[in-house]
Amino acid sequence: MVNRGYTSHANNHLRANNNGHRSWRSDPNWGGYIEQVKVDLKAPCEDLPYLSMDEEYTIIIDDFQALLSSYSVWGMLRALESFSQMVVLSDDGSMLRINSTTIYDGPRFSHRGLLVDTSRHFIDTCTLVKILDGMAYNKLNVFHWHIVDDHSFPYESRTFPELSQQGAYHPSMVYTQADIAHIIEEATLRGIRVMPEFDTPGHTRSWGISHPELLTECYDQYRGKLGPMDPTRESTYTFLSNLFREVIEVFPDRYVHLGGDEVGFECWASNPNILEYMKQNRLYSFEMLEEKFIQRIVDQIDVLKRNSLVWQEVYVNGITRDGLPALLSSCWYLDHLSTGGDWRKFYNCDPHDFIGTGKQKSLVLGGEACMWSEVVNGHNILPRIFPRVSATAEKLWSPASVNNADEAARRLEEQTCRMNHRGIPAQPPNGPGFCI
Amino acid sequence: MVNRGYTSHANNHLRANNNGHRSWRSDPNWGGYIEQVKVDLKAPCEDLPYLSMDEEYTIIIDDFQALLSSYSVWGMLRALESFSQMVVLSDDGSMLRINSTTIYDGPRFSHRGLLVDTSRHFIDTCTLVKILDGMAYNKLNVFHWHIVDDHSFPYESRTFPELSQQGAYHPSMVYTQADIAHIIEEATLRGIRVMPEFDTPGHTRSWGISHPELLTECYDQYRGKLGPMDPTRESTYTFLSNLFREVIEVFPDRYVHLGGDEVGFECWASNPNILEYMKQNRLYSFEMLEEKFIQRIVDQIDVLKRNSLVWQEVYVNGITRDGLPALLSSCWYLDHLSTGGDWRKFYNCDPHDFIGTGKQKSLVLGGEACMWSEVVNGHNILPRIFPRVSATAEKLWSPASVNNADEAARRLEEQTCRMNHRGIPAQPPNGPGFCI
Repeated sequence: MVNRGYTSHANNHLRANNNGHRSWRSDPNWGGYIEQVKVDLKAPCEDLPYLSMDEEYTIIIDDFQALLSSYSVWGMLRALESFSQMVVLSDDGSMLRINSTTIYDGPRFSHRGLLVDTSRHFIDTCTLVKILDGMAYNKLNVFHWHIVDDHSFPYESRTFPELSQQGAYHPSMVYTQADIAHIIEEATLRGIRVMPEFDTPGHTRSWGISHPELLTECYDQYRGKLGPMDPTRESTYTFLSNLFREVIEVFPDRYVHLGGDEVGFECWASNPNILEYMKQNRLYSFEMLEEKFIQRIVDQIDVLKRNSLVWQEVYVNGITRDGLPALLSSCWYLDHLSTGGDWRKFYNCDPHDFIGTGKQKSLVLGGEACMWSEVVNGHNILPRIFPRVSATAEKLWSPASVNNADEAARRLEEQTCRMNHRGIPAQPPNGPGFCI
Repeated sequence: MVNRGYTSHANNHLRANNNGHRSWRSDPNWGGYIEQVKVDLKAPCEDLPYLSMDEEYTIIIDDFQALLSSYSVWGMLRALESFSQMVVLSDDGSMLRINSTTIYDGPRFSHRGLLVDTSRHFIDTCTLVKILDGMAYNKLNVFHWHIVDDHSFPYESRTFPELSQQGAYHPSMVYTQADIAHIIEEATLRGIRVMPEFDTPGHTRSWGISHPELLTECYDQYRGKLGPMDPTRESTYTFLSNLFREVIEVFPDRYVHLGGDEVGFECWASNPNILEYMKQNRLYSFEMLEEKFIQRIVDQIDVLKRNSLVWQEVYVNGITRDGLPALLSSCWYLDHLSTGGDWRKFYNCDPHDFIGTGKQKSLVLGGEACMWSEVVNGHNILPRIFPRVSATAEKLWSPASVNNADEAARRLEEQTCRMNHRGIPAQPPNGPGFCI
């Protein structure tokens, strides 16, 4: 049933008795019965989602028909998602209702991501698919898979199977090649890219269990320990080149994230070979050494005809001033908790909240919410992510002018209940209430 | 298999090959095989747990026998819980191992509670039973059921069925009499008391949906609203007397919690009848009016031969100085969140952390962790409670001298994994890791 006139509050939907369809005609908001939903994809399908894919779509609900149209299958997926959210069960359960409306919609940013860290705690693939489900319900389009880190190496490599055999927490806590293909398939079906991250040169302790030669030997008070990757050995780069050659075969996305964050310099500073190497190469700081290392990996990825991303612990202003594209994530760390429904802090962050030129702002491709997993695992990751990530998702999709948190609170309440209905154990966002 | 000598770290358990039992004899820690577990209950069973029930027990593991003894069935339940936690699977999975030891154990405080608020969000009975399970694993012994509040009235009253018919969120979100009997039965089997709370005179908005006459009519800028219960009408007390007569039949515990917290005075202050009543009764402040109200309810409970408890928003020092018994909960609010595994703030709180005499300290009967449910429901309440409540549980059970948080962290990691094995989705307490 179509309600004439667009109304956004569920409360405006009308009660009706259950005497069959004809009774609706007496409802003053009644417009007609939808006889068909027409899906008009105006261009050929594409196989894989990608950065700056077309996600725009149009929905026209008139009195007799719903028309969903897009020039891209990705836009059509978003249209179907929106359409599914516009249909509401009538209060008496006898009818589905929808408001007559015309919607032209498209995202503000093309990179709308969620990082999931599967190293600090292993997250089983069923839960990852649930996360993809929830991402699709919120029109997020990049699953940034922070797959390995210091604590465990759950990625099963074809080239170096010993990495997970020795570096995973447990043989059951490994992503097999089949698991990864499954995740990529499920993501693709939802218009979500899977961007892998293999963080180097720091955050690599788990690599060192099977390949200690990759890591820097520490001296002095750190003797006996291994530090970040050893940037002085050619064998390190050969190893990484072979691994990344595999990674780009396994992950079809055009982007690979190379990490590059939080490198501790104490171990490098204690190692005389490192210091000698720096001297010979005129590297006057450990930052320069790190930069040289990362540049070599970036070059490897270039040779493989892929794009790379790295973490930058600097303000977006600095990155874009250098003419480089940027993604914002620092204000959307889902592991940062505070009392109450604490999504407003995420909602109050805008990727353009920095002083810079229009050109600089256009270099912001979007952003990512980050679910670092120090204290989440399969038991609590879903309610920790959902619905808090919905706040980030709206900031990345909707125009900058959509920024009233009180109005967002109502939408979020509805979206949470919708996710619950669809099997996502999203937690209550705002306060007392219920979802039937 | 018994390991000689008490060792508390799982790491000290020995690997053994899988060549059958005899191989264990060559293990230098091998003491013998336990041939029987003897359970020696030295006094008749009691039907219901109660404040200051005897929970002491002894466990003696020698080379051939485990002996669990107690003078009380409640102590025996605690002994069985401890014993179940002392048995560890050997690394190769071929054998259960236990260290030879002698344990004399008993609680520091007799009231070790968990409050669960089922009004701000409804919590289904299956989840409540899981909570009782988790409480038993942590030797908590009072389920403080904050069953109704402003937002919903899920208690199905025999006397006033309209309270939940109109005051519950939804007909499916009601605790029937059968549900409540089930919860009490499950709790009793675990040695856990069920203490109901019917909070008055504030926090009663949901009562007013079916019984607006119970609440104070507000005037002036609050006109059209209803405030706390109306303390001037005799009918209010008659109603409560009838309700509490039912409550003490339904809940066998000796204690009923009467709430009495956070009463807003604006509505009372706006109502001329209230002001006139205060004048006639020489009540010079709203605090005095509130006190008079609560005293009448306390008197009702006295007549019914039960004990009552109320919230006090004052320091424990003040309460015990007046010679009154006290429970601590202010430092154990599980809804207060901070980033990371935030149980240490709970662990760093001790019920005797106030300046007072020994007599005052002996008036502290224990404490309660409080799971206020503004932003928890069935989707996230279990990982929100567990294992954070384990910190409170240890503070309430173990001697004051057990207060090293770093040592507790290791125990908590183990306890979390144990709870996971037993079906409680307890979240990771400390940081990266895994539980197989």
